[in-house]
Amino acid sequence: MSLRVAVVGCGTVGSQVVRLLTTQVEDLSARVGDRLELVGVADLNREAVIAQGVDPALVTDDAADLVTRADIVVELIGGAEPARRFMLAAMASGASVVTANKALLAADGPTLYDAAAAAGVDLYYEAAVAGAIPVVRVVREGMHGDQVKRVLGIVNGTTNYVLDTMASSDLDLERAVKDAQRLGYAEADPTADVEGHDAAAKAALLASMAFHSRVCLADVSCEGIGGVTADDVAWAARTGHVVKLLAVAERLDAGISVRVHPALVPLTHPLASVRGALNAVFIEAEHAGPIMLYGQGAGGEPTASAVVSDVVSAARNRVTGGQGPRESAYANVPVLPPEAAVSRFQVRMDVADRTGVLAKISAALADADVSIESVRQNPSPGPRGLAHLVITTHGATEAARVATIAALERLDVVDTVVSVLRVEGDML
Amino acid sequence: MSLRVAVVGCGTVGSQVVRLLTTQVEDLSARVGDRLELVGVADLNREAVIAQGVDPALVTDDAADLVTRADIVVELIGGAEPARRFMLAAMASGASVVTANKALLAADGPTLYDAAAAAGVDLYYEAAVAGAIPVVRVVREGMHGDQVKRVLGIVNGTTNYVLDTMASSDLDLERAVKDAQRLGYAEADPTADVEGHDAAAKAALLASMAFHSRVCLADVSCEGIGGVTADDVAWAARTGHVVKLLAVAERLDAGISVRVHPALVPLTHPLASVRGALNAVFIEAEHAGPIMLYGQGAGGEPTASAVVSDVVSAARNRVTGGQGPRESAYANVPVLPPEAAVSRFQVRMDVADRTGVLAKISAALADADVSIESVRQNPSPGPRGLAHLVITTHGATEAARVATIAALERLDVVDTVVSVLRVEGDML
Repeated sequence: MSLRVAVVGCGTVGSQVVRLLTTQVEDLSARVGDRLELVGVADLNREAVIAQGVDPALVTDDAADLVTRADIVVELIGGAEPARRFMLAAMASGASVVTANKALLAADGPTLYDAAAAAGVDLYYEAAVAGAIPVVRVVREGMHGDQVKRVLGIVNGTTNYVLDTMASSDLDLERAVKDAQRLGYAEADPTADVEGHDAAAKAALLASMAFHSRVCLADVSCEGIGGVTADDVAWAARTGHVVKLLAVAERLDAGISVRVHPALVPLTHPLASVRGALNAVFIEAEHAGPIMLYGQGAGGEPTASAVVSDVVSAARNRVTGGQGPRESAYANVPVLPPEAAVSRFQVRMDVADRTGVLAKISAALADADVSIESVRQNPSPGPRGLAHLVITTHGATEAARVATIAALERLDVVDTVVSVLRVEGDML
Repeated sequence: MSLRVAVVGCGTVGSQVVRLLTTQVEDLSARVGDRLELVGVADLNREAVIAQGVDPALVTDDAADLVTRADIVVELIGGAEPARRFMLAAMASGASVVTANKALLAADGPTLYDAAAAAGVDLYYEAAVAGAIPVVRVVREGMHGDQVKRVLGIVNGTTNYVLDTMASSDLDLERAVKDAQRLGYAEADPTADVEGHDAAAKAALLASMAFHSRVCLADVSCEGIGGVTADDVAWAARTGHVVKLLAVAERLDAGISVRVHPALVPLTHPLASVRGALNAVFIEAEHAGPIMLYGQGAGGEPTASAVVSDVVSAARNRVTGGQGPRESAYANVPVLPPEAAVSRFQVRMDVADRTGVLAKISAALADADVSIESVRQNPSPGPRGLAHLVITTHGATEAARVATIAALERLDVVDTVVSVLRVEGDML
């Protein structure tokens, strides 16, 4: 008896998965303890798959049929339908499922988790978060002797590449995105990356795993990097920071805060040194202290490595009679509204260049109950005789921050609030 | 029915494990899906354990009896005997075992792996390598869709603290060790850390897991940091490196090279930024690319977190009928002798300060078939009119390096070979 593996969806990642399952079959079978057999590859474009060199006898365009003939189904179509339908059909006919489908898991994970539990099969999704980095395995299975307090992730390689390029080459956002597109780090339509939607889906999955709760994409407050200017990036460096798009999942007393936004990260923080299109996840746990995982978060081959690792885990469970992790949402902690999140923030503004200005501004912050950590004043480069004021605050709720900015904008001494960025990465 | 957990050995880590199993019992039981029950704590010093606040009814000095009354036995005595005897007895009576005992696993792992397989029980040992960092889980279970090519680890916090202090405070080794002792980062007798024995045991475990082979402590060639001078550390910085004690496990064509030695790591390498007593493991895999894991490698609480995580894994397997990973040594790749290892190296020497010296030295390297990557010459600070020459080579076997140094020492133009350090961290 061998273990039948079916691959549904044969694009960039799928074709690499098929290649690994074919060329590494001896080694993988040794790890499983039984023979892995690729029984079929389903794709609507049969010709393209055959042109990649896949045995034509294995290639079908009938995924609905294929998924009922396998012990392990690898879903790599992406998106909601028909991916969900095929996964549910696979589980209903007793197959374990391996997927990289972060969008579907973030939007409608519970349907899939419940179906897997009901069918008594495994659902693995290492490749859905940060590609080759085994963050799902670590957060889902490795931290369960501990309480995770916060997860900070650089989980979108495109935006990290763009921000890193802005910092190192002094480019504005638009030109850095073009650069990323030219080098293949950004899609022709970069919206999902730049606006943070991709990172938000991963944030939902990280929060669900870290806090044993069910957090959906709709629970994640999301702000992309569209508003980050070359000036923001330059001022970040001047104040000892670097701008990163962070996925934040945080356990507060009242519940969970899950959000994606650009943030100033202190240069001394390990996440600050994550360059280019790399990904990293920084996990702060009650007893283990901080742990960081770092590596390639995308790309066909790294992602395929994570998928095949899941196939081996699912196959080993078949052989040993074991069971992969289940999404037990026993903690069921409420997800807090965005206003509840607490961050330090840095506000840059052009102000009148005369005495008494700082007193008025300090009073406005004090009125909003926001405490100032540091102030830096520079002559503003413009012709209007203004000063450029950079204020970094202590922790404040998002509500207090919004109120503060509104109050500052009403002050006659404030010409323009140029930029407001959260500061993240203080050690808990 | 609850799952009975016994803790054998209640020192720094054990007492934290007992505390977590007691205070977190509700949460841990929820993760397991069944009730975890601490049924006993064995320690020769009963009074000390009771003084820590452990329920006296649970404390015994009869470990041999206790291990037969549990479903999961946590072994935290350390060393060979009686730890091995208690673990074997526990497995023989059907208990799964969780241990942090790197010394015993590295010296005699196969006896324990085989006993676990024969008894059909689990053997987990996350805490044996790099404390709270889930490197065992990742290498043992997370990379099995891939081929690991090399593992580079900073796995001894004491020596990393000492080397970091030497670099940042310009201290010599002896004073940096004293500093580490004063702060609790080094033992009163720092031999096992300074001479690399602790790192060598972890290197053996990393190599066994990464290459699905049985690598024992005796297979690891080991050189500690005893010979690293303040001058070495200063020159490392001048040439764009930092000195680290590395555990290296590498897959070469002919077999496995496993070694521990101080090495120059380029400042651009992620391992170079691992400061203080932190640990990190850098894994290079065929398809996943490089992955780094980073965090606290020691300390009672972080280590206890890793142990309790293993307890939950072992307990979950009991509940679901599953099976943890087995140490399948199917690859059985031979371990190469130390002479086979290939590294770049940097040699510093005091040489006669006259023309023609570099020609003679270059000829000596060429004769040994070692190719020069860079040369740097400075006036030597001494009174004898010598020059200080720093040569960095391309990759050479250890045998070629030893022959080269002997040849250099025979040259009349070479006054002294001051230092020879390997350079590691080139990307594969």
